[in-house]
Amino acid sequence: MSLNRLIEYAASPEVRAIYDDIRATRKTEFINNVWKALANHPPTLAMVWEQVKNVMAPGALDPLTKELIFIAVSATNGCEYCLHSHTAAALAKGMTPEMFAETLAVAGLANETNRLAVGWRVPVDEAFKAELEPAQGRS
Amino acid sequence: MSLNRLIEYAASPEVRAIYDDIRATRKTEFINNVWKALANHPPTLAMVWEQVKNVMAPGALDPLTKELIFIAVSATNGCEYCLHSHTAAALAKGMTPEMFAETLAVAGLANETNRLAVGWRVPVDEAFKAELEPAQGRS
Amino acid sequence: MSLNRLIEYAASPEVRAIYDDIRATRKTEFINNVWKALANHPPTLAMVWEQVKNVMAPGALDPLTKELIFIAVSATNGCEYCLHSHTAAALAKGMTPEMFAETLAVAGLANETNRLAVGWRVPVDEAFKAELEPAQGRS
Amino acid sequence: MSLNRLIEYAASPEVRAIYDDIRATRKTEFINNVWKALANHPPTLAMVWEQVKNVMAPGALDPLTKELIFIAVSATNGCEYCLHSHTAAALAKGMTPEMFAETLAVAGLANETNRLAVGWRVPVDEAFKAELEPAQGRS
Amino acid sequence: MSLNRLIEYAASPEVRAIYDDIRATRKTEFINNVWKALANHPPTLAMVWEQVKNVMAPGALDPLTKELIFIAVSATNGCEYCLHSHTAAALAKGMTPEMFAETLAVAGLANETNRLAVGWRVPVDEAFKAELEPAQGRS
Amino acid sequence: MSLNRLIEYAASPEVRAIYDDIRATRKTEFINNVWKALANHPPTLAMVWEQVKNVMAPGALDPLTKELIFIAVSATNGCEYCLHSHTAAALAKGMTPEMFAETLAVAGLANETNRLAVGWRVPVDEAFKAELEPAQGRS
Repeated sequence: MSLNRLIEYAASPEVRAIYDDIRATRKTEFINNVWKALANHPPTLAMVWEQVKNVMAPGALDPLTKELIFIAVSATNGCEYCLHSHTAAALAKGMTPEMFAETLAVAGLANETNRLAVGWRVPVDEAFKAELEPAQGRS
Repeated sequence: MSLNRLIEYAASPEVRAIYDDIRATRKTEFINNVWKALANHPPTLAMVWEQVKNVMAPGALDPLTKELIFIAVSATNGCEYCLHSHTAAALAKGMTPEMFAETLAVAGLANETNRLAVGWRVPVDEAFKAELEPAQGRS
Repeated sequence: MSLNRLIEYAASPEVRAIYDDIRATRKTEFINNVWKALANHPPTLAMVWEQVKNVMAPGALDPLTKELIFIAVSATNGCEYCLHSHTAAALAKGMTPEMFAETLAVAGLANETNRLAVGWRVPVDEAFKAELEPAQGRS
Repeated sequence: MSLNRLIEYAASPEVRAIYDDIRATRKTEFINNVWKALANHPPTLAMVWEQVKNVMAPGALDPLTKELIFIAVSATNGCEYCLHSHTAAALAKGMTPEMFAETLAVAGLANETNRLAVGWRVPVDEAFKAELEPAQGRS
Repeated sequence: MSLNRLIEYAASPEVRAIYDDIRATRKTEFINNVWKALANHPPTLAMVWEQVKNVMAPGALDPLTKELIFIAVSATNGCEYCLHSHTAAALAKGMTPEMFAETLAVAGLANETNRLAVGWRVPVDEAFKAELEPAQGRS
Repeated sequence: MSLNRLIEYAASPEVRAIYDDIRATRKTEFINNVWKALANHPPTLAMVWEQVKNVMAPGALDPLTKELIFIAVSATNGCEYCLHSHTAAALAKGMTPEMFAETLAVAGLANETNRLAVGWRVPVDEAFKAELEPAQGRS
């Protein structure tokens, strides 16, 4: 038995509808492997695509900035697949080699200073707490 | 014995010179706690400040984008101190509440799909490999 | 400015509708803080609630088993808030102290052997690949 | 020199005794690679096998539930070997494709909400603290 | 109900025997909180103590070096409790402030370069593979 | 376009100077792949080499101990490249197979107990806080 066949287009109508939406949204015929793997479980496919479609769309941040954040997190977590797919996505959205390099440099530095701050047990400055701590309140 | 006193300005000339550079570069008298903790080990203080000064400076990416990437990585690693200090830095550089929220949404989504891609063992698409795999070559 | 006030019920109709759905689904008046924080960004609130509602519902796995998996992942990632909220949820669904202890024991062991397998660079057995590697195919 | 040869059966009596116990406990002749790698250091082999034998055995949780928790943690940590070996173990214990998919969906969701809870700095609800905080006391 | 009371000495004979062994091994009356928490589940208490007793004992590495490795991993994972308890243990075994600082500097650097190596997708050098890749063989 | 060619010696004078310094410092002609990848972005190459040169040099800790810490962190983060390169470096500095095995055993144990301490929500002992908590003060 294979748990993770790569499901092609002629699958169920449910999967086909999502593939069609991916193609229409991205204006390409290409369906990359992560969708073909998730199609083994249509509710996951639907849930992830819905999120990617909304979260990665233009908003207060432009789509390229979002891809760079995605690359930095994927490097932190060591996800090889995601690094490949989101580096490709970022290139398609205009990422230059310098932007790629600086994204990784920031990610690397954050990973270093995160551990130094934790290891040295640095207490949060009162000035930061005053501004940013959660408080009860209404919108 | 305390390993991690918070070292104030009147410390060694070596520490004082770095504090002065932090103040001059950031145009503020405020030295936040991470520097005061790292000052227990001047070589680490010097090394981290040198990097922060260079990596977070304007380049192919603007400083605000770099702060957002830093926040996303710090949320991924669960570093409370870094979340506070870099959220404050990002606000000072113009981050809006919407930008903050979208940064965390992308970070959250990346953390989810990173694990789905790994758990489903999605193979890297040939199309991605062709473009992005390392190869021997000269500059 | 506070980025993360805890938003109470009298917020926007959009937030109120989700709070009402949380209350109806969970059959309780209590809205815990994670929802009040996410309500600062209604699209994130909607997206996370939609997922929690669907993913944590009864399916091939019962809701308690899902809570135990959630606890194990949250312990792995060091999320204190999530440990509290999902331990409470698991208790409400019938988790015994023994089940809690065994969940953490498995999570601890997995974290240990994950690193041993990586550090010793253990190659995947052919027998495992044959059964489980992804392959092209149709549903 | 190789640090991590795969040690076969005819090794030391110490290793052989553990291999025999693995075979007897699991009712199979098959010894998978992680044991052959750990056999380079018999104390580690003994320590890990002892734990796996006890922690993964039937208890308050059934062995299949334990395998699902193991898979979720291994996906979180990105351990490819462990994903293969524990997916195989879970299948042998009756895991259906739907259970596999739901396990990964919960793991993915937990990884997402862990970071949102941390990034939004959600304070633990008093109701949760009252019930679950550690306190001094006797058994 | 409390899942995690801190269990004092007068608990079950099983717990008492382990506390006695901790005290005898460490030549101190002090039982720190992690043992009192794990005592809620005696099999976990027994399993963890057995490992700590053996793995952290003098061997090819001296006990102080082992504590430094433990600190570096705990900083990487963000475990505040473990940082406290193992920093105390390392101080008791002779760790100087300089050794503490260098341990964190190495941990920080490793966390940075780990992500750069992954993000840049650096292929393993053939020279490293030749020496260190696992191979079939007997002891 | 390739983002991550492996840059050989005849690159820019800037890269060449760093390669020359790596060779002189390490007393070998061999430049391993991580440097050739980072050379795509000379500021990152310079920054990482500067740190590796200083942080991994003899100090309060000897270079071999530092390599063992690096291996433990790399196993924790699952960085295959770093495991290979730093295992090779450690072997060159005198690491025995027993030292390698004990390093991984400590790293594995720390990863396990880190999660148990977090999952059981163990409160930091007052005795540890008194000694190790950060406090305001001068050097």
